Amino acid sequence: MKAVLVLNAGSSSLKFALYPINGELAAEPAFSGQVEGIGATPEITLKTASGTRIHEAVRTSGSQGEQHRDALNHVFGLLTQHNPDLEIVAAGHRIVHGGDHYSAPTRLDEAVLRTLDTFVPLAPLHQPHNLRAVRAVATLMPDVPQVGCFDTAFHRTQPAVAQAFALPRRISAEGVKRYGFHGLSYDYVARQLPGIIGERAQGAVVIAHLGNGASMCALRDGRSVASTMGFTAVEGLMMGTRTGSLDPGVMLYLMEQKGMDAKALTNLLYKESGLLGVSGISQDMRTLLTSDAPEAKEAVDLFCYRIARELGSLAAAAGGLDALVFTGGIGEHAAAVREKVAALSAWLGVKIDAIANADHARRIDATGSQVAVAVVPTNEERMIARYTVETLGL
Amino acid sequence: MKAVLVLNAGSSSLKFALYPINGELAAEPAFSGQVEGIGATPEITLKTASGTRIHEAVRTSGSQGEQHRDALNHVFGLLTQHNPDLEIVAAGHRIVHGGDHYSAPTRLDEAVLRTLDTFVPLAPLHQPHNLRAVRAVATLMPDVPQVGCFDTAFHRTQPAVAQAFALPRRISAEGVKRYGFHGLSYDYVARQLPGIIGERAQGAVVIAHLGNGASMCALRDGRSVASTMGFTAVEGLMMGTRTGSLDPGVMLYLMEQKGMDAKALTNLLYKESGLLGVSGISQDMRTLLTSDAPEAKEAVDLFCYRIARELGSLAAAAGGLDALVFTGGIGEHAAAVREKVAALSAWLGVKIDAIANADHARRIDATGSQVAVAVVPTNEERMIARYTVETLGL
Repeated sequence: MKAVLVLNAGSSSLKFALYPINGELAAEPAFSGQVEGIGATPEITLKTASGTRIHEAVRTSGSQGEQHRDALNHVFGLLTQHNPDLEIVAAGHRIVHGGDHYSAPTRLDEAVLRTLDTFVPLAPLHQPHNLRAVRAVATLMPDVPQVGCFDTAFHRTQPAVAQAFALPRRISAEGVKRYGFHGLSYDYVARQLPGIIGERAQGAVVIAHLGNGASMCALRDGRSVASTMGFTAVEGLMMGTRTGSLDPGVMLYLMEQKGMDAKALTNLLYKESGLLGVSGISQDMRTLLTSDAPEAKEAVDLFCYRIARELGSLAAAAGGLDALVFTGGIGEHAAAVREKVAALSAWLGVKIDAIANADHARRIDATGSQVAVAVVPTNEERMIARYTVETLGL
Repeated sequence: MKAVLVLNAGSSSLKFALYPINGELAAEPAFSGQVEGIGATPEITLKTASGTRIHEAVRTSGSQGEQHRDALNHVFGLLTQHNPDLEIVAAGHRIVHGGDHYSAPTRLDEAVLRTLDTFVPLAPLHQPHNLRAVRAVATLMPDVPQVGCFDTAFHRTQPAVAQAFALPRRISAEGVKRYGFHGLSYDYVARQLPGIIGERAQGAVVIAHLGNGASMCALRDGRSVASTMGFTAVEGLMMGTRTGSLDPGVMLYLMEQKGMDAKALTNLLYKESGLLGVSGISQDMRTLLTSDAPEAKEAVDLFCYRIARELGSLAAAAGGLDALVFTGGIGEHAAAVREKVAALSAWLGVKIDAIANADHARRIDATGSQVAVAVVPTNEERMIARYTVETLGL
């Protein structure tokens, strides 16, 4: 079996998927899974297309870097064990940061990797792990071509004003700008749209990717013109445990009045805020939606309000609103969130059908809605597989 | 002459205006002026209603606090010298922060001042100077009633979601929320609106206060429902030297990668950014609009783009847009800025008349514009005088 291996490496986890390619790329992976607990006691979970699950501990020792390689080795072993004729023809990686440099998926070689190394300060929590996986594959399977798929690349079509902060030029010049993220998801969803909303897919579209991380993107002619996440993944919408946008003066206050340093602020803004911090109950939207606590309602209301505010801002970037699209775990499954956002966006001509919304239908706009409203499941792994095939001409 | 004294005390300056009151409050001050250079070599400039200007050095020594009092004393002396029959019946102060506590102008006594002292950490650069002026007047003229007029008060009608950050409850509970500023200006302009745009003044209105400090406010039924400035005066729009909103991750980056501390960040965000930082030329919109440098155009374009984005966001808060109102130095005088903002906001139904705009007319919307567009000079001093009269029932 010829297949494309898709890898998404985090600090303590490694997600993988194996997409058969036989003339054309399979719609579903033959195998997928993840290694979790790298750095502690790594365990692998593998799922076959038929639904069988395999769960194993990974034998490993040594540094976290060595554990990553051992984990990858274990994954290869398992995949080969289940597919004696497996031939991995390419590996595609999710890489969080392509900087200003990469506006498309790119074949990875040592020169490209060295450029990507220079973006580590822009994404210190993710970029090193992404690149470590690339180098591990190069060691284990030196002949397999690899492709980097960047979360930032899709947004490089944005006009300069959408990418700029109002900072001194010397700081902007060294790369402090709005890169945007979730690009793999936006591109995947954008490519589905013509089949769901027809010609409007070329108009003013806003996609809300609402997961534990959440952002929104405005598109015009299918290209990104603005996004809520900027330099980092903490800007923009309120998220599971992240603040989203925050008055910079709040950070100065916390530094001066509370003596908080960068580490404490990072922890506060990334881990203790958002739905979790406001509710004091949970970061999980499902839990909050079924809770009777007023704090849970407060958190959900704020989450939806901020989506509606950003929707207005992004409509300004797109010059109107022809379609609103929900994706991501919350966007695909939380009908109550979609309903609240739609109610707050009635002024834009958004009107949804209650039954279609409750059914999580592909199209949920009511008859007479000026704005098409769609629910489109995202699939970043499939997007990586497709980018890999396209980039290598397989 | 009976008169209301209006005071606006900053760290190194003291602005004042004397409004005669004779049955009703005069439209224009009989005298106005400012002391500048407090802490160094203070100088007073006084202007009479007929246009005569008086310029004098202030004899002072000692601490900055004593210099403030000496300056105030000098102002009183000058005013009395020109009005032997002057009777100051009340003093009204601009006070930046009324916290959650004060949603209206308030008569000041020692108990209120002690409450206002507790807001110093929320506005350390302004609140102490504001309060020092109140106490100086109490010492110099113990029988004159004083009224505090808060920049934050007008925004206390905002719904909870508009005032909230997605921070943990323990931090929100201690007052880290979105207060909003420029409230005196918004209230003044809002009170003019019925005479300029009729019934639309009760609809969805956005006022853009564009000065060296800049913010925008959404109103519904004449009340604030959202604003771009939140906890501090650095959030929201790009300003003369301030960044406005900024990905919190940028601050973490500057702390971790550049070793910047709160003081350095405050200086960067408040003093070196905005129009000045992006253009590298000037913080003055007039200079930038007449410059041929591409960097000047970049700065102006970003300034206008961000106004247009916030306009979309605030329209979401107001549930639409019936009127757009420009005020403040830039808002009242920079036709090119209004033109760019209007062009970017055509999607909302904004259409301006080129000639009316060039003339800085009160109404600048074109025939057929769905949105009324107005230019309304603001007058925060007159608003303070009026608040003072209303609060004391004079």
